[in-house]
Amino acid sequence: MKTNQQWLIAARPQGDVKESDFQWNETTIADPADGQLLIRTVYISLDPTNRIWMNEADSYLPSLPLGNVMRGGGIGVVEESRNSGFAKDDIVQGLLGWQQYSLSDGVGLGKLPKGLPVPLTAFFGLLGHIGLTAYFGLLDITDPKPGETLVISTAAGAVGSLVGQIGKIEGCRVVGLTGSDEKCRWIKDELGFDAAINYKTANVPEALKEACPKGIDIYFDNVGGEILEAVLNQINLGARISVCGMISQYCADQPVPGPSNLANLIMKRARMQGFLCTDYMPRAEEGFGQMIGWLMQGKLKYKVDVVQGLENAPRALRKLFDGSNTGKLIVQVGPE
Amino acid sequence: MKTNQQWLIAARPQGDVKESDFQWNETTIADPADGQLLIRTVYISLDPTNRIWMNEADSYLPSLPLGNVMRGGGIGVVEESRNSGFAKDDIVQGLLGWQQYSLSDGVGLGKLPKGLPVPLTAFFGLLGHIGLTAYFGLLDITDPKPGETLVISTAAGAVGSLVGQIGKIEGCRVVGLTGSDEKCRWIKDELGFDAAINYKTANVPEALKEACPKGIDIYFDNVGGEILEAVLNQINLGARISVCGMISQYCADQPVPGPSNLANLIMKRARMQGFLCTDYMPRAEEGFGQMIGWLMQGKLKYKVDVVQGLENAPRALRKLFDGSNTGKLIVQVGPE
Repeated sequence: MKTNQQWLIAARPQGDVKESDFQWNETTIADPADGQLLIRTVYISLDPTNRIWMNEADSYLPSLPLGNVMRGGGIGVVEESRNSGFAKDDIVQGLLGWQQYSLSDGVGLGKLPKGLPVPLTAFFGLLGHIGLTAYFGLLDITDPKPGETLVISTAAGAVGSLVGQIGKIEGCRVVGLTGSDEKCRWIKDELGFDAAINYKTANVPEALKEACPKGIDIYFDNVGGEILEAVLNQINLGARISVCGMISQYCADQPVPGPSNLANLIMKRARMQGFLCTDYMPRAEEGFGQMIGWLMQGKLKYKVDVVQGLENAPRALRKLFDGSNTGKLIVQVGPE
Repeated sequence: MKTNQQWLIAARPQGDVKESDFQWNETTIADPADGQLLIRTVYISLDPTNRIWMNEADSYLPSLPLGNVMRGGGIGVVEESRNSGFAKDDIVQGLLGWQQYSLSDGVGLGKLPKGLPVPLTAFFGLLGHIGLTAYFGLLDITDPKPGETLVISTAAGAVGSLVGQIGKIEGCRVVGLTGSDEKCRWIKDELGFDAAINYKTANVPEALKEACPKGIDIYFDNVGGEILEAVLNQINLGARISVCGMISQYCADQPVPGPSNLANLIMKRARMQGFLCTDYMPRAEEGFGQMIGWLMQGKLKYKVDVVQGLENAPRALRKLFDGSNTGKLIVQVGPE
C-alpha cells in the first residue's frame, strides 16, 4: 500500500482563505477494487471556485464536509486499472482532490488524448474549463460585434487574458483592468489589449471614461462590487454583462452590498447574465477546435503559473485573491 | 387668451417627493401660431418615472430644468388647430405636461382612435405604456412557460396587476407581493393570482418559500432592493428577471446598495434584463391587439384610480411611493 499525502478541509474560511483552514494528512491508499482504478495526481488546478467550495452553503456543487479531502480538479496518470474503460498509463482529468493518489470508479473522469501539440497543462486552460469559460462566456453570452468596446476585469488572469484576445480576434476595442503595472504591460504589449487600467492606482471611473470614449458595450465581469458599479455607470444602450465571477465577494465575511445603480440596466436596456462553463460541455469540441486553430495561427497566447509541490497548495491558492498571480495557476504534485 | 394653470418643478426632491418640490403657477396661453395646435388637457398619467424625471441627472430623457412645467404624459382634446395633421376635437396623447393647456407643433403627439369599446383612460393603461410594459416586459424579456413560477413585486400596481393576469393566461403559477391585505385579496380573489404576500407584514423570504415550493423561474421586478435579494436566493436554474423598475431606489437620498447575492446569477445561470416600454412601440399593435382580445374574453381586469383636479397632482404622485394606490393612477384635469 502506498502512502498518500493529502490536504483536508479543516475549517470554513472566515474572510480570506488561510493555510490553517486546511490540514495536512498522511494516510495510505488501498489497492483498486474490482471496477476501480488507481490514479497518481500530476497536476491540480487552483481556481477562485475552490474558495466557493469551502463554504458551508451548497453552491453549484454540494458543500464539502469538514475533514474531507479538499475538492480540486486534477490531471493524473492511471497506475493500475481494474476498470475496462481505462488502462494503465492513461492520462485522466477529473475531481481528483488535493492528494497524491485517488481511487475512482471512472464516473466523471475524462480520458485525455495523447500526442496533441500542446502541453498537458493546457487541459486546465485553453482546452479545459478556462478555455470554455472564456470562449462561450464571451461569444455565447455577449455576442460581440466588431467595433464594440469590451471591458474585462481580472484581465491578466487565466480567463480574462483569453477573453481579451478573443475579443481582439472578434474586432472589439478591448480594455482590461488588472492589479499591477507589470500585468498592465503584459496584457497591452504582449496580448494586444487596446488599453489597460491598474485598478489599484487609477481612479477607475475616470480611467474607464478615458479608455472607453464610446462607452462600454460589453463587460466580462470576474469581480462584481465597485468595478461593476463603475462599469454600470458607463454602459451603452443594449449593453451585455457576462457574469463569470464575483471574486470580490468570495472571501467576504459579511455580505458585500451589490452595486447601487442596477437601475441603469433599465435606462440602458442592458442585460446581465450568469453562466458556468459546465453548461457548455456539450459544445466543448466546437470551442476547443476554434481555439487550437487560433493558437496555431499565433493569435492566442497563454501563460501558466506552476507551483511545485502539493504541500504548497494552500499558500498558492491565496495568490488568486491577493492579486499576485498571472496566468493559469497550477500545482504540480508529481512528474508527468 | 385663456388662463393656464400649471405645476412647475421647483426643487430637486430630497428623498420622498414633497408638494413643496412643485410650484403652482397661473399664466396665460397664447393662440396657436401657424403649424401649431392648442390642446386642452383632460387626463394626466402619474407614474413612478415622474420621480426619475425630477432628478438633476439625465435619465432616458434629458433632465428637466427647474422652473419648467412638470413633465407628464397626458390625453387631451384639440381646441384649435393650425396644423394640417390635426383637426379641432381630435383626441391626442403625448407629453402634455402638468397643465391645463399646451401648444404643440404635433411632434411626438399621437392621435387616438374614437369609438373603441374602452374608456379613454385605457390609453394610459392597457392600450398605453402600462400595457406595453406588462405585455412585452413579461413575454418578450422572460418567455414564460406553462408550469413555471412567476413572482411579481408591486403586484397590485397598474403594471404588476396586468403582468400577473398575463402570466396566468400563459399557464404560470403567479405569486404577487404587495403592501396591504386588501390589495392581497384583490389580486388573489379578483385577478386570480395563486398566492399573494403582504411584504409589509410577512417575512418575505419565508413567505416566498411557502408560495413558491418549486422555486422561482421568473421575477418581474418593480422595486429592486431587499425583495430582489430575497428572490435571488430562491431562483431556479435558468431563471429570468425582467427589470422593469427599482422603485425602492427612486426616492433615496443616498445610493441604496444593490443585492449582495448577485453571484447567484452565476450559480443559477440566470439573466437580469432591463427594458423600457418605448423600445416596443414598433410592436405596439401586436400587444394591444392581443390584450383587447383578452379583455373582450374577460381574461383581463383593469382598475383605474382617478384623482380629480390638477391641483391635487403633487399629492397624488406620493401615493405611488407610499403604497396607498391600487390600479393605474390618473389625474383628471378637465371634462372629456
